[in-house]
Amino acid sequence: MGVYRYPENPLLTPADVPPHRDDFEVIGVFNAGVAKYHDEIILLLRVAERPVAQDEQTIKAAIFDVSAKGLRIETFHRNDQRYDFSDPRSIAPVERKGGFTYLTSISHLRIARSVDGRHFHVDEQPFLYPQTELETFGVEDARITQIGDTYYITYSAVSARGVGVVLASTKNFHDVHRHGMILPPENKDVVLFPEPIGGKYYCLHRPVPSGNGSPDIWLAESSDLNHWGNHHHLMGCRPEAWDSRRLGAGAPPLRTEHGWLELYHAADEDARYCVGAVLLDLEDPSQVLVRSRHPILVPEADYETNGFFGNVVFPCGALLQGDTVQVYYGVADTSMACVEIPLQTIFDSLGS
Amino acid sequence: MGVYRYPENPLLTPADVPPHRDDFEVIGVFNAGVAKYHDEIILLLRVAERPVAQDEQTIKAAIFDVSAKGLRIETFHRNDQRYDFSDPRSIAPVERKGGFTYLTSISHLRIARSVDGRHFHVDEQPFLYPQTELETFGVEDARITQIGDTYYITYSAVSARGVGVVLASTKNFHDVHRHGMILPPENKDVVLFPEPIGGKYYCLHRPVPSGNGSPDIWLAESSDLNHWGNHHHLMGCRPEAWDSRRLGAGAPPLRTEHGWLELYHAADEDARYCVGAVLLDLEDPSQVLVRSRHPILVPEADYETNGFFGNVVFPCGALLQGDTVQVYYGVADTSMACVEIPLQTIFDSLGS
Repeated sequence: MGVYRYPENPLLTPADVPPHRDDFEVIGVFNAGVAKYHDEIILLLRVAERPVAQDEQTIKAAIFDVSAKGLRIETFHRNDQRYDFSDPRSIAPVERKGGFTYLTSISHLRIARSVDGRHFHVDEQPFLYPQTELETFGVEDARITQIGDTYYITYSAVSARGVGVVLASTKNFHDVHRHGMILPPENKDVVLFPEPIGGKYYCLHRPVPSGNGSPDIWLAESSDLNHWGNHHHLMGCRPEAWDSRRLGAGAPPLRTEHGWLELYHAADEDARYCVGAVLLDLEDPSQVLVRSRHPILVPEADYETNGFFGNVVFPCGALLQGDTVQVYYGVADTSMACVEIPLQTIFDSLGS
Repeated sequence: MGVYRYPENPLLTPADVPPHRDDFEVIGVFNAGVAKYHDEIILLLRVAERPVAQDEQTIKAAIFDVSAKGLRIETFHRNDQRYDFSDPRSIAPVERKGGFTYLTSISHLRIARSVDGRHFHVDEQPFLYPQTELETFGVEDARITQIGDTYYITYSAVSARGVGVVLASTKNFHDVHRHGMILPPENKDVVLFPEPIGGKYYCLHRPVPSGNGSPDIWLAESSDLNHWGNHHHLMGCRPEAWDSRRLGAGAPPLRTEHGWLELYHAADEDARYCVGAVLLDLEDPSQVLVRSRHPILVPEADYETNGFFGNVVFPCGALLQGDTVQVYYGVADTSMACVEIPLQTIFDSLGS
């Protein structure tokens, strides 16, 4: 048995999500955190929006203005020599000094609910919207871990200060509490383990060193989820492999008989993002037991290879349904899809 | 009254410190943490050593090898086209892919003791030597904060994984306990506040974002000193000013009647490192009250302008002696010096 992509894929596209205000358009709905809540599957979608531009020569970027407690719209012209517009995701100053890179979209987190896991109803309004000076460029790529009756959400907070990770929590997917930034820039891709191990909470995180070092996966410990320490380097990029360029935790770890199963994303030199797996020791998650030599999911379907930023499969959550892992994943920075993979298929792939 | 540089400066130079093994030479003794212990002033020196090279065309770099539990010596030839030797501090691969930048020296932390604060006796052997895979390139730039009867030491752990910050502690400057890495790469310049504020411990730290953002000073909170959270951006680089390029906390904050006095270092576009001051609210250290428009200490003396890396004054510790601040600081990445500055002089400078 191999990977089973839902025939309904992509499950959610920008056309399925209304913008949160009339003068905006949704350009991406992807990289959703996943939770089971009562009888429903919840996706906490990253919704990327932008102000509708009047013509092709104009790019408008929305930024959250803390003092005004609202959005400010910046307008750029494509022939402005001071900026590099070649990356569709960003507007970069040619001269970095004193300037910072704008995003062409601003993301928020929005809830979608489903009973069958294939058809979703999307909320009209955001669940988490930029609110602080560390979120002025948006909030992105949530992961959800249920611990007891609380759902903990880790997400990327993006601003001119860099990208850090904020913790939030909810008990009902209606009221949400922000706990503050738990990891400062540059960091993202934080997943919490779903239970304490030896009396401590653990997370995986992905710092980006500015000098030596590569974007690798690290492990950290906490006693209260709000404060983190005892950082260890867990696993790095592998030259020449599918995960040569950058790594990041994907779904929160799943407890299996063979160890903590972590589905992670990685990119190679061509910026192709695939999904692989790693097993960590159940008692000591700093011990890597075995790791995918080859990816278990690669961008192949049309909706995975083509889009705003193509050749990307990017999971932020997975559910263990009996012997099967149900993986929700962003595709091409554009839409959401789902794949089912038997646990045994993953274990077998790790042996080869 | 202005700044009073000790006539004995530099207080400690490489010639005053024996290498910890015979085939090494000391090239720098600088950036020391400072503590008062019984009747003595303790400096926890950064001692930079390198293997003695046989000829001018050879550079030897020492790296701590975790599996061998000892040093490994790498030999480079100056005509090796694969490396860039232009920075005296490092050996950088011309092609970054798969390679990492070596340091031309490896640093450890060593204790020096003094009764008069001007003449020091230096230990023969290291107090803290590289020990883990996150310290393979050395341990650097300690800060010391006394809390109760314990002296907490924060230092930079340097490796091919990047630069992070480790916490250690001692009660007697003889036995030392490592608490683990408290902030992952890229981070350094961590100082602990000497007492809890509103029931929480605080530190200043200096992450280096890899994209947007600059090397600025951040604030974080902890309940146990080992785990940190609620990160806030505190103060940033100022374009065109003396602190335009990078900032970092220097000495652990000193409690004064006007607020927490933090002496910080900063570099401008010419990589000139000066010392300035900032006052933070006593009850809420996230509030910046006032900050030096001009530095209070600039590299002027010969021992500050000339050396391994010239034009650097870099404090890692200061003692409040009555109405005077006694600042120990590294000079030119080579030696140690001391300056006394009346508190009032600092306060007056902040007003202008």
